[in-house]
Amino acid sequence: MKKGEIERFCRFSMDGRTYNGTVRGSMVDIVEGDMFGGFSGMRMSYPIDRIKILAPLVPAKIWCVGQNYLGHIRELNHQLPLEPLIFSKPLTSLVGSGEPVRIPEWAGRIDYEGELAVVIGRRCKKVTENEALMYVRGYSCFNDVTARDLQVKDGQWTRSKGFDTFAPFGPYVLLTETMPGDARITTRLNGNVVQREPFSNMIFSVARIISHISRFATLEPGDVIATGTPEGIGRVQPGDRVEVEVDGIGILTNPFVAEP
Amino acid sequence: MKKGEIERFCRFSMDGRTYNGTVRGSMVDIVEGDMFGGFSGMRMSYPIDRIKILAPLVPAKIWCVGQNYLGHIRELNHQLPLEPLIFSKPLTSLVGSGEPVRIPEWAGRIDYEGELAVVIGRRCKKVTENEALMYVRGYSCFNDVTARDLQVKDGQWTRSKGFDTFAPFGPYVLLTETMPGDARITTRLNGNVVQREPFSNMIFSVARIISHISRFATLEPGDVIATGTPEGIGRVQPGDRVEVEVDGIGILTNPFVAEP
Repeated sequence: MKKGEIERFCRFSMDGRTYNGTVRGSMVDIVEGDMFGGFSGMRMSYPIDRIKILAPLVPAKIWCVGQNYLGHIRELNHQLPLEPLIFSKPLTSLVGSGEPVRIPEWAGRIDYEGELAVVIGRRCKKVTENEALMYVRGYSCFNDVTARDLQVKDGQWTRSKGFDTFAPFGPYVLLTETMPGDARITTRLNGNVVQREPFSNMIFSVARIISHISRFATLEPGDVIATGTPEGIGRVQPGDRVEVEVDGIGILTNPFVAEP
Repeated sequence: MKKGEIERFCRFSMDGRTYNGTVRGSMVDIVEGDMFGGFSGMRMSYPIDRIKILAPLVPAKIWCVGQNYLGHIRELNHQLPLEPLIFSKPLTSLVGSGEPVRIPEWAGRIDYEGELAVVIGRRCKKVTENEALMYVRGYSCFNDVTARDLQVKDGQWTRSKGFDTFAPFGPYVLLTETMPGDARITTRLNGNVVQREPFSNMIFSVARIISHISRFATLEPGDVIATGTPEGIGRVQPGDRVEVEVDGIGILTNPFVAEP
């Protein structure tokens, strides 16, 4: 790691065992401990292409925010929200970078939604916007995969966004309380850029979202909050590959396959 | 336990430790093991009124069904659903019988919703209605506490139903795959019956609900599914006490208090 560089935390499997690590260029250094209680290096490193990256943590819960970028609200003909709109995804929908997203034909149209994800580091309740970022452990990439037809049909979004494998998350967690405002989220469908927008265009900031959720629910270490998708959502088909990249973090890449 | 009687499983704390147990009249017998892997009695019994009952398990997830009784759909002016309507509550909303439900004044109108809860015993995906009940471990009582004003305002129900303490669950799990169709759910507000309806009036049966969820998400041991509330929902205020009773299971009772 270079001096002044922010560490990127990962989880991976090798020879049937699971490890935590930090990323250094094309290498991963194994660490002892975790991103919440603290960790230290073990002087064992492996090339990233020799290991299998997993979701960087098993979340306590997955919270999501809807309608947090103006362009996306316009493309779906939604109303401008007065407060962050919160929904959730079940933990059974979680997959890491590289893992396939399985889409059943009966579910109709399936869309990618590239997003910035926040990882909560410490338990909190009723925090103000000013103090909210103190409870952040880091940031990662998220794909809020959505069965668009079912989303409209159901009204409630739990099913359409809650299929097994519909929550790709990773590849790494950038361990910092704040992201630079000009950092961008970029989504690529089969290599073509389909979403690109700086976080500064969020309607509700990360601090506001944390404060909002913590007014009604206790946030816990390991809670992940996907902060909403910018303009440019679109359909995926079996055989497609979607990459969600956040500047400074990495690329979350997932193939989409037909559910057998 | 009398011969032929179905066991009721519970969890409780005593002298700062947590135990599993089974209920026998006014006594609880401590058991070793749990309701999923199996358990056996330890020949130690305590009077129920000397222990503190906890939620009978820490769920893997809490799934809920909306609009599953005709009378309730009419009282809220909702449409008759063609499929079970699924939403979820975060685990941070769970409380056991006897624990207070904390209602913040800013959240507006708060309602009780008495419900039958199903506990999933084994992992399953894509199960048919015919085989669905094989994956049930038991049944309990549930109160799907709802901030009614916020439910209407938000559209998505995650916040209005996801406040800390808004998911009272218990007191026991009746260990059986099926409930008798004429068993009733009864809700009392300060001792007065406000909801009473047999489960046979459900629009979608327990088997149908399990089959429906398992089409999109893997159900896991410890998943709890609250199966919808019958007609007669209503407002609660600080100082009220709500009891949800299911024939053959027990009474889930919770005081409602103002959030400090």
